[in-house]
Parts: sequence; structure tokens; C-alpha cells
Amino acid sequence: MTENTAFSDPERAAVYRAIAERRDVRRGFMDRPLPAELLKRLLAAAHNAPSVGLMQPSRFIVICDLAIRKAVHGIFEQANTDATASYTGKQREQYAALKLEGILEAPQNLCIVCDTQNERGHKLGRHTMPETAAYSTVCAIQNLWLAARAEGVGVGWVSILDPVRLRAVLHIPEHILPVAYLCLGYVDQFASSPELERYGWEKRVPLETAVCYDRYSEDTGS
Amino acid sequence: MTENTAFSDPERAAVYRAIAERRDVRRGFMDRPLPAELLKRLLAAAHNAPSVGLMQPSRFIVICDLAIRKAVHGIFEQANTDATASYTGKQREQYAALKLEGILEAPQNLCIVCDTQNERGHKLGRHTMPETAAYSTVCAIQNLWLAARAEGVGVGWVSILDPVRLRAVLHIPEHILPVAYLCLGYVDQFASSPELERYGWEKRVPLETAVCYDRYSEDTGS
Repeated sequence: MTENTAFSDPERAAVYRAIAERRDVRRGFMDRPLPAELLKRLLAAAHNAPSVGLMQPSRFIVICDLAIRKAVHGIFEQANTDATASYTGKQREQYAALKLEGILEAPQNLCIVCDTQNERGHKLGRHTMPETAAYSTVCAIQNLWLAARAEGVGVGWVSILDPVRLRAVLHIPEHILPVAYLCLGYVDQFASSPELERYGWEKRVPLETAVCYDRYSEDTGS
Repeated sequence: MTENTAFSDPERAAVYRAIAERRDVRRGFMDRPLPAELLKRLLAAAHNAPSVGLMQPSRFIVICDLAIRKAVHGIFEQANTDATASYTGKQREQYAALKLEGILEAPQNLCIVCDTQNERGHKLGRHTMPETAAYSTVCAIQNLWLAARAEGVGVGWVSILDPVRLRAVLHIPEHILPVAYLCLGYVDQFASSPELERYGWEKRVPLETAVCYDRYSEDTGS
């Protein structure tokens, strides 16, 4: 087995840069489809993710067909109308003004699903925590998201969807779990801060509020 | 808002390198604890992950106390004994010979939990898919895993644990979801292929088997 060596300072900085500058992108997608080779690099990055027992349960549905994207957009609109109705007053106005998806603008959509019952890996690591199959798929998504940032490709995760209707449109069978619906496309800029922060929906909290030692505690000393 | 620029070719290559050379590490951890500043960089990378509605639900329990690590190791041993008993014949022998954790060798353990009920983000994105809170925490884990690779730090995810017993040892309350238990430490090498593949437990499959177009299909053309 070959042994891999240390990262140089610039290489390390590049990894942190991708982490810091990755954004959830909902606007500004260019019409130009991603070249097949680029899309393949992104999918390979996802496929390279860790998976429990090496089961590799993630499946990638690449969606370019406009009719299908329109059907998914309809599912979003219904779910978003319902979500809007759950807020009141100023918060409802604020919610309604947010741009929360780019399903039709982005020339590629990607639905990432998890074959949670797959026998690959022979259940190693899944006896007591079977949810690690779906978690493996999320690791794949984050790999893709960071690789996309490095390629100048914006990615937005749309979770304002009824999974039952999404299954119907994409022919996803019962034993396959839809994990994420992503919009992908070239963008000419990445914002320096999250859109939900810029539009006043929520603010980020400092790291210190999220760390504790040896045992769980709400009192993080922040 | 500042606009972020394109990655150079070497920067892009570094991101792909971290993705390709990240490994689930279970052996070879050095005794030397990680410097506080390095650990903080890794936690900041995790904290920087996308989160649904910007809720930032992840909490990081840094565990150095040997007594606690021994208690968790006992939980692993019981779960692993049970798992071993679920296999038969040659597969049981093979399973029993695998090294699946480094809880006591790694000087730091990290339990990453999710505050799934937190009101931050005001439920944005969680009305129809509430599981995205836990998924946000997994994105944080994958960020940390890649940053760790760039820092020469090995990370291993241990899911062979009874979450009920883990909650008791780490004082994790009912409303907080344990997502992952990680072992972290300096290593002097990263294997070029996954350990489960080298030891014959499972083989990786090519990307082509995991991709389909416009609708879900088992027939990926591979």
C-alpha cells in the first residue's frame, strides 16, 4: 500500500478556503450546462465519500429534463406556500420574500438518494446505528459541495419539498430514501456570507457556543 | 458583500486531493494530543458547514478524559461482540479480525450531536424534511474529516455503539441526537485505499453503477 504524504501549506489553505467560501446558492445560475467531464468530477468526489462498511449506498439522479424540473418546481411551490402560511406577521412577509431555490434557473438538478437496505458492507457499522447509511450519503453531498466551490459551480440544497410527491415524479421506489435535492450550475460569484444572514432571517453564532468538554453541557462557557 | 473569486488550478487540485486521500483511520494514532489551535481549526471547519435554515444545530463534545473513553470503549466492545455473533463461518472470523476503532489509542475523541429541536432558523427548510437538521450535522462532520486530512490528522467514525448507553455516559439529554463518535489523532501515514477493502471485507464499485438520469433507475448502464 502506498503511503500518502503531508499537505503543503498552500494545499491546506485551499481546503480551508473551499470550506469557508462554500455557499448555499439559490440565484445567479448561468444558463450554460456543466461540461460532462466536470459533472463527472463532481459526482466522483461524492462517490469517494466515506460510507459505513464501505457500502456506498448513494445513488445520483442527474436531472436536466425541463419537464421534470418543472414538476419538481411545482412540488416546491406547494410546500413553500404551506410553509409561508405557518408564519405570521412580519416573519411571514420576510419568509415570502426569500429566494429559496433555483430549480428552473440551474440547468442541472441532482437528486441524491440512499439505498439504505443494500447488502453491500454486510451491515458492518449498521447493527446499532442503521441511520449511518443515510449519513454516508450526506458525506457524499458535502464532498460534492466543496468540489463544486473549487470548480466555480454553485450548489443549492432544496428541502422545501414533499418527499412523497418527489418520489412519484422521479420514480423513486419505497426502499430508496431521497436525501437531498440539489440545484447545480456555474455562477460568476459566491457571496461572502450566507444569504439567510444577509436577508436578516438568522445570524451565525460563534464556534464557542457549540463546544463542550468530556460530557454534554448547554453551558459551553460562551 | 464581497465577491469571492475563482480557485487556481493548484487550489482546486488540493481540494480533490483531500477528498481522494481522506481515510477512515482506526490505527496508528500517535500519543501526542493535538494542539489546542489545531483542534479549534478543525472544529471551526465543522461549524462552518451548511445548515438548514442556518440553524447550526451541531454540538461538539471533545473527550480527552481517559475514564470516559474507557467507558465508551466498553460500549463498543459489547456492541462489537453482539455484531460478531450475527455473522457465521468464515465471515465471522473475518469480522472478528478487523480493527474497527481507535477509542483508547487516539488521544482525542469527539462526539458530534445534533440539537434537532432548536428553534434557530425558525424551521426554514424543515417543515417537510425535518431530517435535514441531522443531515446538517453530517455536513459538519465531513468538513472536519477533510480539514483533518489536510492537517495530517486521522479521523475514524465509530458507529458500533449502543446510542442509549452512549447517551448515559456522555450525559446527552433526550432531545439531543448523537450523530457520530469520532477518534482523532496525528498519524504518520494515510493508506492509499480503504482498510475494509485491503482486508477483503468489501470492494469499492465504480461511479457508473451509482448514476442515472432524469428518473431513478437500477439500470445505470454500467
